[in-house]
Amino acid sequence: MSKEEYRAVGKSEEDMAVVLIGHGSKLPYGKGVMEEFGRRVEMRGIFKGVRVAFMQLNSPSIEEALRELAEEGIKNIVVQPVFLADGTHTTEDIPEKLKEAFEGVWAEIGKDVKLTYAKPIGVDERIVDILLDRVKEAMEGE
Amino acid sequence: MSKEEYRAVGKSEEDMAVVLIGHGSKLPYGKGVMEEFGRRVEMRGIFKGVRVAFMQLNSPSIEEALRELAEEGIKNIVVQPVFLADGTHTTEDIPEKLKEAFEGVWAEIGKDVKLTYAKPIGVDERIVDILLDRVKEAMEGE
Repeated sequence: MSKEEYRAVGKSEEDMAVVLIGHGSKLPYGKGVMEEFGRRVEMRGIFKGVRVAFMQLNSPSIEEALRELAEEGIKNIVVQPVFLADGTHTTEDIPEKLKEAFEGVWAEIGKDVKLTYAKPIGVDERIVDILLDRVKEAMEGE
Repeated sequence: MSKEEYRAVGKSEEDMAVVLIGHGSKLPYGKGVMEEFGRRVEMRGIFKGVRVAFMQLNSPSIEEALRELAEEGIKNIVVQPVFLADGTHTTEDIPEKLKEAFEGVWAEIGKDVKLTYAKPIGVDERIVDILLDRVKEAMEGE
């Protein structure tokens, strides 16, 4: 998706930041994958800020990432859960942490920041394509 | 990916089955998403069998899915973890369940079934595209 397609929405995404939220893991793989997603979203050059944050175990936490953006004066933040499907993490745990962060960060820095909570990845034909690629790679790699 | 591209690998994917393994959840969303991925992989018409199974909480279990395929006489099974990144689930929990299932199912049905364990989704530009779509939808949906 290009910057132009984003513009077609008619919102001011250039003053906007995106926070990609990962699950968090004691193993290093998840953090590495999330940071690479963050770099790639950043490279698209669509948003004023891109942050990666973790629900648990890894840093930065959700509150840390939101605080940083708020301190930079970002007024419009979309929080994108990088999860395949809704579950207790996306419907309970992350919203709860967002609420805490919102109350914590915003009580200090001001309440004029708008937070939008996006949907997880969900059913998408591109996931089917990726899964078929992984199956093929496993067959080739034997 | 077409059936022809699969054929280019030079393996007999028409005698092959794929088991898509999901995390499992007490909420219904994850199961629904996984079942839809299963239907869509099946619709590509590449494999002899496509099954969805869950690491925990939902059914069928990994052992149940493998048993069914083994009973149908499938000799070549690729197990595809439907996870964004490697973590303890993909490196410890699922392999352990595969080992248990393998010992359980194969002791009964015969040891001439070949199991290949594929990699999770991982870093992929198509995931970046999907995330940007979800962010855009959240902006539009406000």
